[in-house]
Amino acid sequence: MSLNVALAMPLHTARAVFSSRSLEPLEPALNLLSREPIQDFHSPEGQDLLRETDILITGWGCPMIDDAVLDAAPRLRYVLHAAGSVKHHIGDACWERGVMVSSAADANAIPVAEYTVAMIVLANKRVLQIARALHTTRSDVLPEQLFPDMGNYRKRVGIIGASKIGRHVIRLLAGYELDVAVADPYLSPDEAAILGVELLSLDELMATSDVVSLHAPSLPSTKNLIDAGQIARMRPGATFINTARGELVDQDALLARVERGDLYAVLDVTTPWVLPAESRFYTHPNVLLTPHVAGSLGNELERMASSAVAEALRISRGETLQFQVRAEDLAFTA
Amino acid sequence: MSLNVALAMPLHTARAVFSSRSLEPLEPALNLLSREPIQDFHSPEGQDLLRETDILITGWGCPMIDDAVLDAAPRLRYVLHAAGSVKHHIGDACWERGVMVSSAADANAIPVAEYTVAMIVLANKRVLQIARALHTTRSDVLPEQLFPDMGNYRKRVGIIGASKIGRHVIRLLAGYELDVAVADPYLSPDEAAILGVELLSLDELMATSDVVSLHAPSLPSTKNLIDAGQIARMRPGATFINTARGELVDQDALLARVERGDLYAVLDVTTPWVLPAESRFYTHPNVLLTPHVAGSLGNELERMASSAVAEALRISRGETLQFQVRAEDLAFTA
Repeated sequence: MSLNVALAMPLHTARAVFSSRSLEPLEPALNLLSREPIQDFHSPEGQDLLRETDILITGWGCPMIDDAVLDAAPRLRYVLHAAGSVKHHIGDACWERGVMVSSAADANAIPVAEYTVAMIVLANKRVLQIARALHTTRSDVLPEQLFPDMGNYRKRVGIIGASKIGRHVIRLLAGYELDVAVADPYLSPDEAAILGVELLSLDELMATSDVVSLHAPSLPSTKNLIDAGQIARMRPGATFINTARGELVDQDALLARVERGDLYAVLDVTTPWVLPAESRFYTHPNVLLTPHVAGSLGNELERMASSAVAEALRISRGETLQFQVRAEDLAFTA
Repeated sequence: MSLNVALAMPLHTARAVFSSRSLEPLEPALNLLSREPIQDFHSPEGQDLLRETDILITGWGCPMIDDAVLDAAPRLRYVLHAAGSVKHHIGDACWERGVMVSSAADANAIPVAEYTVAMIVLANKRVLQIARALHTTRSDVLPEQLFPDMGNYRKRVGIIGASKIGRHVIRLLAGYELDVAVADPYLSPDEAAILGVELLSLDELMATSDVVSLHAPSLPSTKNLIDAGQIARMRPGATFINTARGELVDQDALLARVERGDLYAVLDVTTPWVLPAESRFYTHPNVLLTPHVAGSLGNELERMASSAVAEALRISRGETLQFQVRAEDLAFTA
């Protein structure tokens, strides 16, 4: 008899993430109880669905799954999250009762890595600065006179954090002739060798990279990881990319260094967000500011739906989860 | 006895392309006659070097190698060009006398492909348009409300021309979840299958791609290849990338479609170049204009030097050239 699947998330999440075709592969191997998501676990409809559910596919904004929810869901064995972090909806009760949890954090990491690699390539070549100069002068611009050190051959790219995103960046950069270095206190030299990267201390990475890209999780221990001292270490002409979280970086020190004119920044996140209208991050020519677009947006949400559906199909075939999340992982990940 | 190598190119080319370390691998397998390039084949120094040269490494601006030059170079068997096209300095005399010719066109294709892939990723995500909106409004911008169709998942990328550049684009895109289609009258279905791409007619590629990128050579037969009719075929919201040559594209029709507001363009080349100051290509918000920066610049020139040096080392080991150019190739390539 096939296992029962239900969805739990706000209606707008379901509409955005689950296209009609993304749920199709579930059947006939699994039985989707309803295409309408559970929005409130305590509603009569929610309680009816929970009673029959073996596998719950969740999305952004899913309410907390606590003891009361699990009491109403005697068959529930799996929660498959079609988004990144599970910290907002997986309560201790899930871990204590042995519910198996999976997330689409890996699928969510892909667009961030794609954005990052595009920005690395453009940064080493100064493409956006040159485009801006051309836009302003409306006459011939001579790139190599502006930027004699430009180019994407054998430059060093420093990746802070061999996280899911960091590893996708490394994977994509394998096709480029760039030297990739990583700083990560949890990465062993053997793992670094397998990844094909040079393992450096954070200090050395900051001091020697042409582009530094931040892919560390936001944790109490990583707050202000890139402080004024680290920012001061960066090479003149280097580029700093932040697609992680603003609070990992001393925002004032970063802006001060950018204002000095010898550092470039690509910022998909800042603290605070939204910035005050007078912030120089909006207008400095050496800054590209984007409003948190590196992560999954538009049709990239469908990739996370497909990831959760693929996990459900693995369960139906008796296979192990590919992207299982364990309670002990949460101290080290977003 | 080791073969003799000489350089032939203007001094500024040699300074830009050949860093001191790029020539080091030649020795001891080969004998570099001089680190100073021959700038004029008919000068006394040029004639002295030519007399002893087995392998000539050439660069941008190398003068024509004609009968008179070959008469003065009785030992010359190889011309290795540390740049792309050989049409400006390899005369008929070279082909008639069986001089073997190699070019660094493949190395020169790499940065163009890297630029292209970065622009494809940013185009599908509307990153530069969103950044511009943020730069202007200095307040919160909601990307998905501006561009609900955004994202890099399963979009179609149409490559015009399975040229060296086109193939490097295909290679880099293998790491992305994008559907790659190619239009090329010389590509067979079997070759397309090996490349992992869908082979389409130009008409169908133009009509169905989310991003179209032009990588055809500039030949009499390709002038105005992308004419008003092809431009009209493109999907609303599509992006057209030109890193090839302006004369392949009807510039007025492209600008008119951009001005209509439902086409985006990334242009590293235009006709004419430099554009008149009043051209809307400089200023239209849906255009990213760059001044011919996609090709090798800055440290990317060193990649072409390394390519030529690697060819010379293959000769010294009795191997065949990796990037040999034959007279009959010139009708189909840049």
